[in-house]
Amino acid sequence: MNTKDMMIQEKVKPFLLQARYGIEKESQRVTLEGHLVRTDHPTSVGSRSFHPYIQTDFSESQIELITPVTESVDEVLASLEAIHDVAQRSMPEDEMLWPFSMPPALPEKEEDIQIAKLENHADVLYRRYLAREYGKRKQMVSGIHFNFEYGLDLVEQLFLAQTEEVLMENFKTRLYMKIARNFLRYRWLITYLFGASPLSEARYFDGADRPKEPVRSIRTSRYGYVNKPDVKVSYETLARYSEELAENVAQGRLSEEKEFYAPIRMRGGKKVADLFHTGIRYVELRNIDLNPFERVGISSDEIEFLHLFMLYLLWTDEKLPADEWVAEGNRISDAVSLEHPAKTTAYVAEGHAIFAEMLQMIDELSLEGGDLLQKYQSWLDHPAETFAARILALDETKGQAAVATELGLQFYNQAWAHPYQLAGFQEMELSTQSLLFDAIQKGIETEVLDRQDQFVKLQHKNHQELVKNGNMTSKDTYIAPLLMENKTVTKIVLERAGFHVPHGETFASIAEAKKAYPRFAQKAFVIKPKSTNYGLGITIFKNEPAINDFNAGLALAFAEDDEVIIEEFLEGTEYRFFVIDHQVKAVLLRTPANVIGDGKQTIKELVSAKNADPLRGTNHRAPLEKIQLGDLEQLMLKEQGFRIDSIPDKDQQVFLRENSNVSTGGDSIDVTDEMDESYKQIAVDAVEVLGARISGIDLIIPDKEKPYETAKDYGIIEANFNPMMHMHIYPYIGQSRRLTIDVLRFLYPEMAI
Amino acid sequence: MNTKDMMIQEKVKPFLLQARYGIEKESQRVTLEGHLVRTDHPTSVGSRSFHPYIQTDFSESQIELITPVTESVDEVLASLEAIHDVAQRSMPEDEMLWPFSMPPALPEKEEDIQIAKLENHADVLYRRYLAREYGKRKQMVSGIHFNFEYGLDLVEQLFLAQTEEVLMENFKTRLYMKIARNFLRYRWLITYLFGASPLSEARYFDGADRPKEPVRSIRTSRYGYVNKPDVKVSYETLARYSEELAENVAQGRLSEEKEFYAPIRMRGGKKVADLFHTGIRYVELRNIDLNPFERVGISSDEIEFLHLFMLYLLWTDEKLPADEWVAEGNRISDAVSLEHPAKTTAYVAEGHAIFAEMLQMIDELSLEGGDLLQKYQSWLDHPAETFAARILALDETKGQAAVATELGLQFYNQAWAHPYQLAGFQEMELSTQSLLFDAIQKGIETEVLDRQDQFVKLQHKNHQELVKNGNMTSKDTYIAPLLMENKTVTKIVLERAGFHVPHGETFASIAEAKKAYPRFAQKAFVIKPKSTNYGLGITIFKNEPAINDFNAGLALAFAEDDEVIIEEFLEGTEYRFFVIDHQVKAVLLRTPANVIGDGKQTIKELVSAKNADPLRGTNHRAPLEKIQLGDLEQLMLKEQGFRIDSIPDKDQQVFLRENSNVSTGGDSIDVTDEMDESYKQIAVDAVEVLGARISGIDLIIPDKEKPYETAKDYGIIEANFNPMMHMHIYPYIGQSRRLTIDVLRFLYPEMAI
Repeated sequence: MNTKDMMIQEKVKPFLLQARYGIEKESQRVTLEGHLVRTDHPTSVGSRSFHPYIQTDFSESQIELITPVTESVDEVLASLEAIHDVAQRSMPEDEMLWPFSMPPALPEKEEDIQIAKLENHADVLYRRYLAREYGKRKQMVSGIHFNFEYGLDLVEQLFLAQTEEVLMENFKTRLYMKIARNFLRYRWLITYLFGASPLSEARYFDGADRPKEPVRSIRTSRYGYVNKPDVKVSYETLARYSEELAENVAQGRLSEEKEFYAPIRMRGGKKVADLFHTGIRYVELRNIDLNPFERVGISSDEIEFLHLFMLYLLWTDEKLPADEWVAEGNRISDAVSLEHPAKTTAYVAEGHAIFAEMLQMIDELSLEGGDLLQKYQSWLDHPAETFAARILALDETKGQAAVATELGLQFYNQAWAHPYQLAGFQEMELSTQSLLFDAIQKGIETEVLDRQDQFVKLQHKNHQELVKNGNMTSKDTYIAPLLMENKTVTKIVLERAGFHVPHGETFASIAEAKKAYPRFAQKAFVIKPKSTNYGLGITIFKNEPAINDFNAGLALAFAEDDEVIIEEFLEGTEYRFFVIDHQVKAVLLRTPANVIGDGKQTIKELVSAKNADPLRGTNHRAPLEKIQLGDLEQLMLKEQGFRIDSIPDKDQQVFLRENSNVSTGGDSIDVTDEMDESYKQIAVDAVEVLGARISGIDLIIPDKEKPYETAKDYGIIEANFNPMMHMHIYPYIGQSRRLTIDVLRFLYPEMAI
Repeated sequence: MNTKDMMIQEKVKPFLLQARYGIEKESQRVTLEGHLVRTDHPTSVGSRSFHPYIQTDFSESQIELITPVTESVDEVLASLEAIHDVAQRSMPEDEMLWPFSMPPALPEKEEDIQIAKLENHADVLYRRYLAREYGKRKQMVSGIHFNFEYGLDLVEQLFLAQTEEVLMENFKTRLYMKIARNFLRYRWLITYLFGASPLSEARYFDGADRPKEPVRSIRTSRYGYVNKPDVKVSYETLARYSEELAENVAQGRLSEEKEFYAPIRMRGGKKVADLFHTGIRYVELRNIDLNPFERVGISSDEIEFLHLFMLYLLWTDEKLPADEWVAEGNRISDAVSLEHPAKTTAYVAEGHAIFAEMLQMIDELSLEGGDLLQKYQSWLDHPAETFAARILALDETKGQAAVATELGLQFYNQAWAHPYQLAGFQEMELSTQSLLFDAIQKGIETEVLDRQDQFVKLQHKNHQELVKNGNMTSKDTYIAPLLMENKTVTKIVLERAGFHVPHGETFASIAEAKKAYPRFAQKAFVIKPKSTNYGLGITIFKNEPAINDFNAGLALAFAEDDEVIIEEFLEGTEYRFFVIDHQVKAVLLRTPANVIGDGKQTIKELVSAKNADPLRGTNHRAPLEKIQLGDLEQLMLKEQGFRIDSIPDKDQQVFLRENSNVSTGGDSIDVTDEMDESYKQIAVDAVEVLGARISGIDLIIPDKEKPYETAKDYGIIEANFNPMMHMHIYPYIGQSRRLTIDVLRFLYPEMAI
């Protein structure tokens, strides 16, 4: 098959870069000092019997992180970053991931290496067999498995661009067999560039059969975790490959197919024989060492290069019959893997030829990537740039183990720096990041269907749920949020059901509203827009206002909405009750932006100190917002006789805002445990009357510890259909309430999370 | 009790006009020629066993329309208008309402007057008793019952402004007893102004005991439908009133309490004795004749006057002991009702005194209404202005029956002029008007909780439902509409479930989107904003466009939304399937704005003729929109070689728009019956996959009559979570599909509508 001729067709070109990717990555868990842990797989993650993202490989200490299949480099890296955050933050705080392929120093006694405690007994038995057959130490090596699939449109267009094969499945199989052979022939280049296991730590090798270290990659060399030399399989056709693999199993050289540790695997069905029915769907590249300089073990440059390399394997012709071609590749790969990292490879000329051909390819196909290829090509003449050589250089200054520990700690700190964020998804809303974190942790399959729209798909077995904004689910009816959105209607419904709500009226014109002055002026009252948020346009009058002030308040409110509510002002403190599935899961007190004096610092300095809290950010990127010192705050200070350079007394609390919204710098204080149960029951009952299942309902309560007796003990202000969850998860003061876990429990009761 | 002193208190004043109103109105059904009908109560309205709005009074032909209790004059009139529209449009097309209190000519044989065929046998028995006791003819008179309640805040403030009564209930009872006595004393003024039954038609009176017509009000005179003279009850206290009423029943002068036809009734419980527990809650004024010049039998001026009159009854002191005071009132009322309408009343001086006192009252209380009072006061000196006199004048020119028929027809035409509107609610969305119409018709209690927000409450027995925009209900989940709102996610979900959707991609930046040109340019494709509506920003490219045109299309789409979809354009015709509760209830074809030539008229003239259709309006106030002749339309004409003054050939169809939205003048054509069932099943299944219960889903189908075989036979474009219903209810061509009835059936399966 002359794939080159197909690839240059105009109809093929638009689809050349279409592909799907998935990554599996193993790592040893170690202490913060770099010692292999003896603890079990973390209990906070969901069961390994189904967990799609966080598994164990051979040993209990060897965590395996698996991304879903994605359609772009950005997505696969985002997933891998996220799974790293979850894995790291699910482990005990004194554990981290060892960033190298080669394990840290291993226990003296082999029996101290624990086989993974999997629930499926067959999996345990298989690992026991491997331990007997290869020894446990060899299994402790880690790496990246890179799953790659050419895009379906690309394969279809290539198929249409030829006439040799009339059946799509046969065409695809021939295509992938070519890829496999070319990969085996040229894979040495990957080992040269990205090989990163030059040295072993104590007790990895237990006999004399070991390389004269340092080398480019112990792991991909014959000293790595590879099959015994008598296991040989042809890649000429899928039929021969399958036959010979079966023969190896029949002869007892392999216990089963999956024991065949080829650097590339053809995937598509559960077993190789299935590939005849399913066709080869994708390939798994298995010879990639962990890149210790990247937290996730692989960089986007490496993936981009691998993608172009996969296209090159399609592009370039084979130059020898299949078996010879593969044998030559194996020979070169073995040799390159055992070269000294700092030395020029014996295959430098072939290397330059490959890069020249790749550059020609991207030129003919109008693809980008020239700079990347030139960078890696330059490494052929500068072997010091290769990963193995860089590790070696670091090893010479402070020793490989210390380097690994240092890098591991750096990645550990990265994962813990902003515990409210989920790497890879930081631009999404905090609630959604938290929900994704919890779902990944508990082993619920997650997929972001629309990042900008905060639209997430969850799946566990056959049970699918869609969630938007972290709390909009199938559990609520359509009408309930529409009801809560309308404050007037909410009050009508609550009042008729016997709840105490502030007496008020709604006005659609400022002229009508002005006439209401005498009806409200005698008691404390509030003017607010009917349906906006964040406290905009709200004026509170505690004493009878002048008619001019009243009219000014109306103008402010009508600037925010077509309709305005005037209602009685209830005395007391406002609390947010987060209700889900008939239970109050959190109660929060929000106080307006404030600082507490120390008798020394100015208000400006106090604000600045308070804003240094990593929980405070801007634009809802953090659980709390930084306090501003704008016109509104300065006016508020002025009314209290302060300026921004005033120095408040020690312990004096100075408020900078009237409204208590967290979004304008307010503090959030969890009071769930202090709140009397009677008010929680009122909140639950009111949400029930509104027909809602998830709601943040705001109650005014003069004394939260005195049980409810009469209507004067509380008043319901409003109910919110998209309540912020992160202010409960990360309160300024008090206990965190992990509401996103409650959402998952509500959606997946069968999982007993 | 000196209520005047209470009313002038500052704390009372803001609440003086607070009140609640309800109206009951009887009318005889007649043919369009003005003859009493012999048909049954209309079958299209819900059962009289529970109907809250449309009932029958004494005879089967006498329809009774009942408003809910409302808190403003506007609301009570809106409800009454709406119920009139429903009643009229539920009656056979050859029936209308007789606008006069006095019935049309009655049958010669009394047995031809049919007693109302009510389901409750006790109700029928009672009517039979009345027929025996008073004769059927007397019962055929109709009127208005006006229910009036002083606002709760007003009563509370009055209560707080006095010290005589310490119990609120006692205070209220005393207040309402005073009102009742004053009403009985001064009610003659209402008869003078609004009395409107000067003449009887044939066979209303069957004996010699009849007034020398014309008079001001036969109905309120002793010749009307009143108790026999031996029935006497004191209004001194509630206790005496109750005792004496019971005595009348015990003595057999009345069959039961409700046979006591007082001009005012104290209401609050089911029976008068209940009033001791409940207190008097409101009063029912029963002496108001139908105003034949108003479709609904009463004008807002009358109601405003009655309101001020009720305040006056509170304001003015009684000048005689209770029984004498009432007796004097009865005497004057009898006299005034039998005066000649064109003559000055004998009580003109007292009339002026009352008006003077009322004007003084509104002045002291800073109330509006001076102009209204002055207008009605002037009628004292110009009796020709009174209703009775006006009727008499008309009678003299063409006869009362002809006048009644003419007025009745005028109101009939009014009800049928815009059948898609519901009087009183015309500013609401057409779908909501239609839903309200159907709910009122079927006897579901309706309440508009928020007009601007299209928020409606429905209730039948204990089953309450909230509905917004006519189709947003508790039957859908919260997430389903959010899913449908997001076209990208909708397509992902449908595609994964195996439905055919156009292949496409979503772009968040114009730069990224521009790169997609080669991937889409080879086939027909469409560029559209991700989530806006009404066809804005959409460009369709059927042939490979120049890159500049492609970029211009992107710019248009990005002007409407942050994200833009480019997707394959499916050939075929787009149909809207309206799915509710797993059934396709309507299929609609929408064609772009167009005219069909007649070989004579210009395009401008053809457009103007087409726009004359009463179904066409502007700004969604009608089921179809008027065709515009703006820049877009003229450009479209130009591209086809036309100008607005071109004359198309006979039968030539000229399109004025590319997009087929009804909102830009397109035609709607119902094709429900022609659509092959297989596509309806696809629509139902797709809506099911989206988790929705109500959806308007758009399918492209090349041949709607050829059953579905392969994916090429259809494609799903999008699903709409707030589908317009009125375009199906009032299509341009084809059968109307009353979808709002389907919504009610879905919400209230137990009613078997």
